[in-house]
Amino acid sequence: MIKLGILGANDPRMLAAVEWLLRHPKVQIAAVAGTNCAGNMMDDRFPRLVNRLKMPFLEIGASQLASMCDVVLSFLPHGESLRAGIEIVNAGCRFVDLSPDYRFSNAAIYERWYGEKHIDPTRLGQVPYGIYELFQASFRDAKIIACPGPFAAPTVLCLLPLIKEHLIKTDDVVVDIKAGVRSLDEKPHPSILYYDRHENVEPFGVGSHRQHAEICDVLSGATNQPVQISFTPHLVPMERGMFSTIYINPSVSVSANQIRECLLSYYQQSTFVRIVSHLPTTQCVLRTNYIDVSVRENGPKITILAATDSLIRGGIGTAVQAINGMFGLDADSGLNHVSDLSKG
Amino acid sequence: MIKLGILGANDPRMLAAVEWLLRHPKVQIAAVAGTNCAGNMMDDRFPRLVNRLKMPFLEIGASQLASMCDVVLSFLPHGESLRAGIEIVNAGCRFVDLSPDYRFSNAAIYERWYGEKHIDPTRLGQVPYGIYELFQASFRDAKIIACPGPFAAPTVLCLLPLIKEHLIKTDDVVVDIKAGVRSLDEKPHPSILYYDRHENVEPFGVGSHRQHAEICDVLSGATNQPVQISFTPHLVPMERGMFSTIYINPSVSVSANQIRECLLSYYQQSTFVRIVSHLPTTQCVLRTNYIDVSVRENGPKITILAATDSLIRGGIGTAVQAINGMFGLDADSGLNHVSDLSKG
Amino acid sequence: MIKLGILGANDPRMLAAVEWLLRHPKVQIAAVAGTNCAGNMMDDRFPRLVNRLKMPFLEIGASQLASMCDVVLSFLPHGESLRAGIEIVNAGCRFVDLSPDYRFSNAAIYERWYGEKHIDPTRLGQVPYGIYELFQASFRDAKIIACPGPFAAPTVLCLLPLIKEHLIKTDDVVVDIKAGVRSLDEKPHPSILYYDRHENVEPFGVGSHRQHAEICDVLSGATNQPVQISFTPHLVPMERGMFSTIYINPSVSVSANQIRECLLSYYQQSTFVRIVSHLPTTQCVLRTNYIDVSVRENGPKITILAATDSLIRGGIGTAVQAINGMFGLDADSGLNHVSDLSKG
Amino acid sequence: MIKLGILGANDPRMLAAVEWLLRHPKVQIAAVAGTNCAGNMMDDRFPRLVNRLKMPFLEIGASQLASMCDVVLSFLPHGESLRAGIEIVNAGCRFVDLSPDYRFSNAAIYERWYGEKHIDPTRLGQVPYGIYELFQASFRDAKIIACPGPFAAPTVLCLLPLIKEHLIKTDDVVVDIKAGVRSLDEKPHPSILYYDRHENVEPFGVGSHRQHAEICDVLSGATNQPVQISFTPHLVPMERGMFSTIYINPSVSVSANQIRECLLSYYQQSTFVRIVSHLPTTQCVLRTNYIDVSVRENGPKITILAATDSLIRGGIGTAVQAINGMFGLDADSGLNHVSDLSKG
Repeated sequence: MIKLGILGANDPRMLAAVEWLLRHPKVQIAAVAGTNCAGNMMDDRFPRLVNRLKMPFLEIGASQLASMCDVVLSFLPHGESLRAGIEIVNAGCRFVDLSPDYRFSNAAIYERWYGEKHIDPTRLGQVPYGIYELFQASFRDAKIIACPGPFAAPTVLCLLPLIKEHLIKTDDVVVDIKAGVRSLDEKPHPSILYYDRHENVEPFGVGSHRQHAEICDVLSGATNQPVQISFTPHLVPMERGMFSTIYINPSVSVSANQIRECLLSYYQQSTFVRIVSHLPTTQCVLRTNYIDVSVRENGPKITILAATDSLIRGGIGTAVQAINGMFGLDADSGLNHVSDLSKG
Repeated sequence: MIKLGILGANDPRMLAAVEWLLRHPKVQIAAVAGTNCAGNMMDDRFPRLVNRLKMPFLEIGASQLASMCDVVLSFLPHGESLRAGIEIVNAGCRFVDLSPDYRFSNAAIYERWYGEKHIDPTRLGQVPYGIYELFQASFRDAKIIACPGPFAAPTVLCLLPLIKEHLIKTDDVVVDIKAGVRSLDEKPHPSILYYDRHENVEPFGVGSHRQHAEICDVLSGATNQPVQISFTPHLVPMERGMFSTIYINPSVSVSANQIRECLLSYYQQSTFVRIVSHLPTTQCVLRTNYIDVSVRENGPKITILAATDSLIRGGIGTAVQAINGMFGLDADSGLNHVSDLSKG
Repeated sequence: MIKLGILGANDPRMLAAVEWLLRHPKVQIAAVAGTNCAGNMMDDRFPRLVNRLKMPFLEIGASQLASMCDVVLSFLPHGESLRAGIEIVNAGCRFVDLSPDYRFSNAAIYERWYGEKHIDPTRLGQVPYGIYELFQASFRDAKIIACPGPFAAPTVLCLLPLIKEHLIKTDDVVVDIKAGVRSLDEKPHPSILYYDRHENVEPFGVGSHRQHAEICDVLSGATNQPVQISFTPHLVPMERGMFSTIYINPSVSVSANQIRECLLSYYQQSTFVRIVSHLPTTQCVLRTNYIDVSVRENGPKITILAATDSLIRGGIGTAVQAINGMFGLDADSGLNHVSDLSKG
Repeated sequence: MIKLGILGANDPRMLAAVEWLLRHPKVQIAAVAGTNCAGNMMDDRFPRLVNRLKMPFLEIGASQLASMCDVVLSFLPHGESLRAGIEIVNAGCRFVDLSPDYRFSNAAIYERWYGEKHIDPTRLGQVPYGIYELFQASFRDAKIIACPGPFAAPTVLCLLPLIKEHLIKTDDVVVDIKAGVRSLDEKPHPSILYYDRHENVEPFGVGSHRQHAEICDVLSGATNQPVQISFTPHLVPMERGMFSTIYINPSVSVSANQIRECLLSYYQQSTFVRIVSHLPTTQCVLRTNYIDVSVRENGPKITILAATDSLIRGGIGTAVQAINGMFGLDADSGLNHVSDLSKG
């Protein structure tokens, strides 16, 4: 059994992650470290866990946690996560980071978007970006894997093959996202009070969202082409689905069918990427690690439609894929036929 | 008092319309004609109306209804509405049509999209398209006004000035819509059962929606320029808001600020169009006739964000504006400081 | 015009109240006083008000506000509201209190439930309890009116006539409430984060809720009979409706029909109390001041079912009724055919 | 592997059941029989199943289905299910019935409530009522098990021990239920259109619901005491949770603690019944087979609060427990640490 430690007990995604991990046949939760809830039992805080997990939150530092584990999964905010990650890796443990700290290719772009100095700049550009279906080759030997942002994950997965194969123009891509409330990772973001989200659509970070920068950086880095995107995330009144509507200009004489064939060929071995002919919906992937993708002609552009569960893709599902890759476990281990058993 | 008749008692938008009209100081509901509910009292069917409106549904034909009214408002489905409208106008009454029957510029395009012959083709192109802020000049003498589709209304309102002033390129516009369940007018459309809509985002009619055709026809007709649009409506889990995210390529050397100034100058006299600097949300316009519009730079494109209440804009609010225009009432009569008092 | 001042600008019910008051034909908002938002314009904070209300929040004390107004409406928390109310009344102004500070019959019970000394104990028992339909006779000369808690309002309205007429046993009444998130007034209460409320039913304050005490105190005081109630409020995933299911044991040989007749006779003059034969729903009263009540035999008990909008009954609707009563305005002024135009 | 057949492919609970069963280690879905969807592949109809289950709907009769299976699970409506069940049992196969056809103790009461003659009356009273925790002793040899109604399941589970132990008075019990839309099994019931359920609480069947009769019949039959209940189910705006608030009069000198101790002792061996000290919520049991129960003093009565997932308790979870009992599988097989992976 792989011994897993979890950092960041106060994150609202914690319960979902724990419920998911409880079913992984090869991973065992060794310890959960938090600050404000140390000493509490997990099932006091999360009554869904009564009779299912009897384990205290520990008030221990990152390196002590590392000494108990094979790998540590971090839900800490950016900056904090970076400092913990360095300690963990120095202690000889591996590190799967849900924060943005290791997602970018260089410190300059990180610092521009996060307004803080990066204290481990030499690793940037070396840490694999955690989309298993695209970058698994580098997972096996990775000390650190940077899980993608929840908005970035489906976007990169859809666009990277098309850019690599020169099927689309890279100077004018539109990415329009409709996201449930649990798609937000870090503040600042719109209010998540019930009556601010209920019966409301609210865009945010239009033209200035940090994952907008992340997507452009990752796509440009992986394809050696400059990529320009218009990016608008919107909160819609639901808990956890995410729908990405991507509008592209195909390269000269490329058809919607060629776009579709390219995606099919890239992902034919990937259990969790389903290139479908019907229109995807978020319900069809809710509480699973699947991403459903369809391609349509639409006026002068081609539209790619992708549905994911934001708490899995770009969350715990991605993290489990990272761990499977790191430790050479079966690709679908802990994910196949599994849907989220969390409350969230 | 203007005597108003209503046709199509079974439409789910009926109650909202009645509640709204009850507050109009110059319009009186003279009669409501329906088929399956004739003889029933309206407050039996809609218990919200108990103590507020005591009036039976009448089982009468269009011409008989016309004889009792100054103007008839139709919630009938396309085709049916057309046949009723002809009778009503022939009886000397005026007609405000919420169906798509008179929205198009010619019979060929109507027949292509609706698969039926148009039996009043000579009027097409003559009937004013019911956006008061743009076409009120032709309302005063109109026998018929064609209210826009709920998806088309905000799109046309945002784009028409920009195309007319040659501020944007017309060959590549993206219109991405997030709509509540009550934005649907006619079938076929996705299921509206609670558990099919709850916690779900579902696109529909991608590249093939009838209002996609309506928007292109209206914009091309009003500006004498061909207009090409990529159009994707999505249902999101809410009742009645609508959010339109429009991505445009500005003409050479046109800035976001010029786009904004153009909209400001077109709509400075219009109470219900608010060009705002904050990002709009559907909650901010819910149950009102307002449309809130903002403009943002966003990567290589400029994004226009517009929020409306789909049951008002493209519904009863639009119809009231049509009636006000037809009868020379004050522009905001029955609408100013009014929010919807309906259940829906 | 009655000049109204509002205290407590940070309360989430503020916007709904303002939108409602904007339509009152005899009441004018003279000033709104807040602390953290002083200097801001109201439409900056509440963009729904753009083009509708241009007015700053003022950073002034209660007595200064009183000097500008005929009546002040307080959204302040308990204790704070009490201190402000005393100042306002001393300054010769009238006071409508949405807090619980003046609802109880004596200081001892207030202090037991709120854990604080009451600094104006001699007024307790003298201040009218703000249910217009029951206590309007004492409104005309009142300096202060204590608006009921949102859970208490429909319960008292249903039960008081039945207890007064000795139609039910008072030692065993069950009041089971299903409330939207905006029914909560004061903390502590369950989390109102979107994902804690969505797809969830949560009871709270079972057997220990402050409005449980309020209901018993008001009913006992008004009927001179001890009243014992089992009371359970539950949050359900909606914004603002409230449904009260009340189970009573009728007095010997009293029928459901007699219960119904009693309510009919008490409320036959009251526009906003509708004793209906169908089963009420919260949608039927949403955004109105109506309370719909029905009576049913149900096994060994009789069940009274009552639907209200928690933000109106026990909120701004109740407050407007209080003001109408205080100033001798028409009973339905600002309420008739009006539904809430607020976002919330 | 136990070979399972499913009847009633058009039931909206089908997908949830299939997803759940796919994870049972000892049960294999052998065939699904439907009428209108015969010939279709299941993953065409339910795109969540793409890549997970490739199986056609079969248009075969009950006896043919029986010949392929060890046990058949029926989602058919009452009457239809009864006719199929007789055929299945006659063919030597076992039968787990989600319909009400075998729940009652005698034909007279069935016929009174369902308005139809019962064609297999001699089995009534012999068929075990499908609450594993109470009646598992009779499951092992049962040919048929009658799964309880979703409203009845938690009510019976909470009340039966207390009545058996004479801890409560049986002439005056209040059962007040708040249920998500997927708690409805058979028509007639309120509309399930999105805008009729959203932002609404609606009671139905007050004093006349069929499961009201079922509860009284089961409790009286199992305890040999007449039981009188006031029963009100309410739909609240959510998909699948159910919250039961039960008000009881304890027998003389019985305390809330004794009530709690009784439940603890009855269910100490039962994984899925959690007698908790905190207040239950439906979120805490969502997508699981758990029922969380708490006991509180509340004015003159004692209140029992119980949360379940209506699609599991009284649905597929109950059915799996029935199958486990019938075939001597481990009690928690297919249920332990499992949460629902269905869309619904």
